[in-house]
Amino acid sequence: MKKKDAIYSSELIVDDVADGLPEATQTLSHYDESGQACMVDVSGKQATRREAVAAAFVELSEAVLAALPQNPKGNPLEVARFAGIQGAKQTSNLIPMCHPLALSFVDVRAQVVEGGVAIEATAATVAGTGVEMEAMVAASIAALTVYDMTKSLDKAIRIREGMLVRKSGGKSGEYRREIV
Amino acid sequence: MKKKDAIYSSELIVDDVADGLPEATQTLSHYDESGQACMVDVSGKQATRREAVAAAFVELSEAVLAALPQNPKGNPLEVARFAGIQGAKQTSNLIPMCHPLALSFVDVRAQVVEGGVAIEATAATVAGTGVEMEAMVAASIAALTVYDMTKSLDKAIRIREGMLVRKSGGKSGEYRREIV
Amino acid sequence: MKKKDAIYSSELIVDDVADGLPEATQTLSHYDESGQACMVDVSGKQATRREAVAAAFVELSEAVLAALPQNPKGNPLEVARFAGIQGAKQTSNLIPMCHPLALSFVDVRAQVVEGGVAIEATAATVAGTGVEMEAMVAASIAALTVYDMTKSLDKAIRIREGMLVRKSGGKSGEYRREIV
Amino acid sequence: MKKKDAIYSSELIVDDVADGLPEATQTLSHYDESGQACMVDVSGKQATRREAVAAAFVELSEAVLAALPQNPKGNPLEVARFAGIQGAKQTSNLIPMCHPLALSFVDVRAQVVEGGVAIEATAATVAGTGVEMEAMVAASIAALTVYDMTKSLDKAIRIREGMLVRKSGGKSGEYRREIV
Amino acid sequence: MKKKDAIYSSELIVDDVADGLPEATQTLSHYDESGQACMVDVSGKQATRREAVAAAFVELSEAVLAALPQNPKGNPLEVARFAGIQGAKQTSNLIPMCHPLALSFVDVRAQVVEGGVAIEATAATVAGTGVEMEAMVAASIAALTVYDMTKSLDKAIRIREGMLVRKSGGKSGEYRREIV
Amino acid sequence: MKKKDAIYSSELIVDDVADGLPEATQTLSHYDESGQACMVDVSGKQATRREAVAAAFVELSEAVLAALPQNPKGNPLEVARFAGIQGAKQTSNLIPMCHPLALSFVDVRAQVVEGGVAIEATAATVAGTGVEMEAMVAASIAALTVYDMTKSLDKAIRIREGMLVRKSGGKSGEYRREIV
Repeated sequence: MKKKDAIYSSELIVDDVADGLPEATQTLSHYDESGQACMVDVSGKQATRREAVAAAFVELSEAVLAALPQNPKGNPLEVARFAGIQGAKQTSNLIPMCHPLALSFVDVRAQVVEGGVAIEATAATVAGTGVEMEAMVAASIAALTVYDMTKSLDKAIRIREGMLVRKSGGKSGEYRREIV
Repeated sequence: MKKKDAIYSSELIVDDVADGLPEATQTLSHYDESGQACMVDVSGKQATRREAVAAAFVELSEAVLAALPQNPKGNPLEVARFAGIQGAKQTSNLIPMCHPLALSFVDVRAQVVEGGVAIEATAATVAGTGVEMEAMVAASIAALTVYDMTKSLDKAIRIREGMLVRKSGGKSGEYRREIV
Repeated sequence: MKKKDAIYSSELIVDDVADGLPEATQTLSHYDESGQACMVDVSGKQATRREAVAAAFVELSEAVLAALPQNPKGNPLEVARFAGIQGAKQTSNLIPMCHPLALSFVDVRAQVVEGGVAIEATAATVAGTGVEMEAMVAASIAALTVYDMTKSLDKAIRIREGMLVRKSGGKSGEYRREIV
Repeated sequence: MKKKDAIYSSELIVDDVADGLPEATQTLSHYDESGQACMVDVSGKQATRREAVAAAFVELSEAVLAALPQNPKGNPLEVARFAGIQGAKQTSNLIPMCHPLALSFVDVRAQVVEGGVAIEATAATVAGTGVEMEAMVAASIAALTVYDMTKSLDKAIRIREGMLVRKSGGKSGEYRREIV
Repeated sequence: MKKKDAIYSSELIVDDVADGLPEATQTLSHYDESGQACMVDVSGKQATRREAVAAAFVELSEAVLAALPQNPKGNPLEVARFAGIQGAKQTSNLIPMCHPLALSFVDVRAQVVEGGVAIEATAATVAGTGVEMEAMVAASIAALTVYDMTKSLDKAIRIREGMLVRKSGGKSGEYRREIV
Repeated sequence: MKKKDAIYSSELIVDDVADGLPEATQTLSHYDESGQACMVDVSGKQATRREAVAAAFVELSEAVLAALPQNPKGNPLEVARFAGIQGAKQTSNLIPMCHPLALSFVDVRAQVVEGGVAIEATAATVAGTGVEMEAMVAASIAALTVYDMTKSLDKAIRIREGMLVRKSGGKSGEYRREIV
């Protein structure tokens, strides 16, 4: 359990990099002055390269983890990778206030680590809005696919640690979550 | 933190109900005899009512939780509920080995609890296959939407405890995860 | 304007047919006992043949109506028909509380009448829930497509009379709107 | 009925603003020189900010209008707003000749007025083509959702006045429909 | 070239099996008595198990075929398989007159043979209509994905032999294309 | 059969035009340095106009070809054209490693020629990546729709000659397949 703890500790340290830690703003995202949830108008924003990296972790029993490499031909982690990439493209259809945008890159990594499968998803665009949610959705869908491919072996699987790992581009500057 | 711990303890007890605890099977889900990932053929299975309940938890800072009820008109938890319901309908498009099916019911509950927002999603169908993944997807998409609606307030949000809570119908019988 | 008035009068008479006029119920659709919007659980309902017919009307200037038949090869009404049929299949993705279901039939008719294009859409299924919204969506998407195909000729186009024309199957019995 | 009449009069006055009323062109939209329906090539057009506002009106009986505010927790108009926003993103999938584009803003307003629910949808983009249809689709899907949420109370609901209210950006200049 | 010729000969023999060769009918599919293209009403048809198998062939140069197994980790044929399975689920959204239905099984096989990659897709349902198009779409999307994964190596790739291989269930009986 | 042979000969000559024949590269498309299938990062690429033309051919028996023009009102080739245009917009959802992008133009031509229906699809964009797959998907979906509209007349239909015809824009220069 040591490696997992190291990678997925609850005591996260938010690192302050580049042009400063994004301070908590005073309002919820996606709300207008009258308090109604809305999509933010990004038509005046500069189209710059924006990238985000998100993570998720699928907690699996040792028995399931042992079964994963025994699979002769197919590879559930590959299925999960493709599902995550395809899922990222559905972000604006799934998350109501997200803008549809032309993704210039999506990648999903999935690897067996101690205690489960660690997923990391990266998304990038050249647009007036960021791709944090695209990375989050990619990681989540990949995690759900690992769950689906392994659920016959163990019903006590848990998906954890869905979170933003890194974000760059746009005026809010770079953000990086130090995972200790 | 007491209530959250109580609800979302890591020490889960898998309860053995109805016609017995589903034992770990010997093979991964969705693999044929040659080891290739595939969709299971459910055309010979009995169409019976099947229901599944899944959960997810969005860990939010106290500052964000305090901001949630201050929102005068809109309600981010309502946006999350609708997104989860709509997401459940996309399950077979998002999870490669899932069967498209006619859902007879989907519901998503989202409530502020100590330490974050607790989500519970229920899906039901009358079909030859279960709706475990539909409930899991609904809970995950609702959690991602809460994340999206609150992310301007805090980047250290984490989505946790994506898991099956209850499942009934089909030959594998009833399953219930005791959350202590 | 006489024919149009006859067909699309504002003074609609709701006809009481077959097993009785569906009385106004006491609650909004899709609300549970706690007052939250939800999808109705139809898993206990009988799968019977259900059919619905809906209408819409695209009000066009005489100039546009005159231009429609002059088009040598393509036919905007055909494009509208196909769009309406395809749109019906998206109903549960578009209307939050609608159940995804296997449609057994969709048809859209579009014809030039006095004052515009009259659209009538029919949907049918064998399921535990009706297809009223599928017919309504088909008629609306067909109307929007006629709008899109003609909007360069006239910006004052109006889409009107989106309404249920007939409904049968299910326990609420037959409903027919008498259009006078 | 006075307010509704005022807002949704049939005698619309098309106002001629900014750089002139867009004159009726000589051909249908989306037709090439051979008369076949086609998507217009916009690759040579300037990417500028374009915005469109569309309306729709859901005619409801007084009984239904009275029931709307009595709903304790959920709000059918909020469900309609989200459905309209999500629907706008599906425009190019629903309307055959529409270009897929990156929307920079969508908003939907829905309010109870005399005689029904008035919907107004706004869409914006920075692209080589306008978002008139995105606004029209958003308004229509929101209206259909209000219909769906209220249809158990009254089957004689009508969706009316689906129309463009305002349009700006692009070489055709500004258009505004004066609603008297 | 011998094996490919054997498998994909142009001189196909249509075999007459089970309850007889489906005779050429007198009318096009999906046309009503007035000659308008329409979706066939299948609500009166018996829900029975129906299965279809379709094929496609991606003609690749020897150089590309030699490169395929050299890929250390990923496998373009696996990506193609998943894309084909996911594509089958989109059939009714892609092919206008196809009915949306609950697929009970989809599988795609892709293997390197002499001269290219041979794809075989199987779809099954328990419904009132067949899944011939679902199998055809799955095979086509898998072939297009192989094309996409190999196109940087050779632009002269051709997709050929998209065809029905076998069909069973429903009143038209079994059909089998003898591939000599 | 002469015309068909002329148009769809197997002995294709790849023509070397403009800035040179794109040489076979050394690696498969969409693979990173570690050998994993991935989406290529195009965020650094210049957004220029890119166009691609693809073809497909639906081989039909003389009997079916004779039946096509006899259809009084509807036109299966028109249905196929619209399906192809709509299919192009789904490319990134269907082909895993394709980038979602804003298409500025799609057109599909379908005509009866000797031996079948010849389809040609054109796609264009102003983006950092090409639209070869969009054109290929449009041609394939149009071909599948012709198949669907004619399959009741003849089960021995074959879809052939899915291939890139022309491509321009981007740094790889112009490509043209000489069809002799």
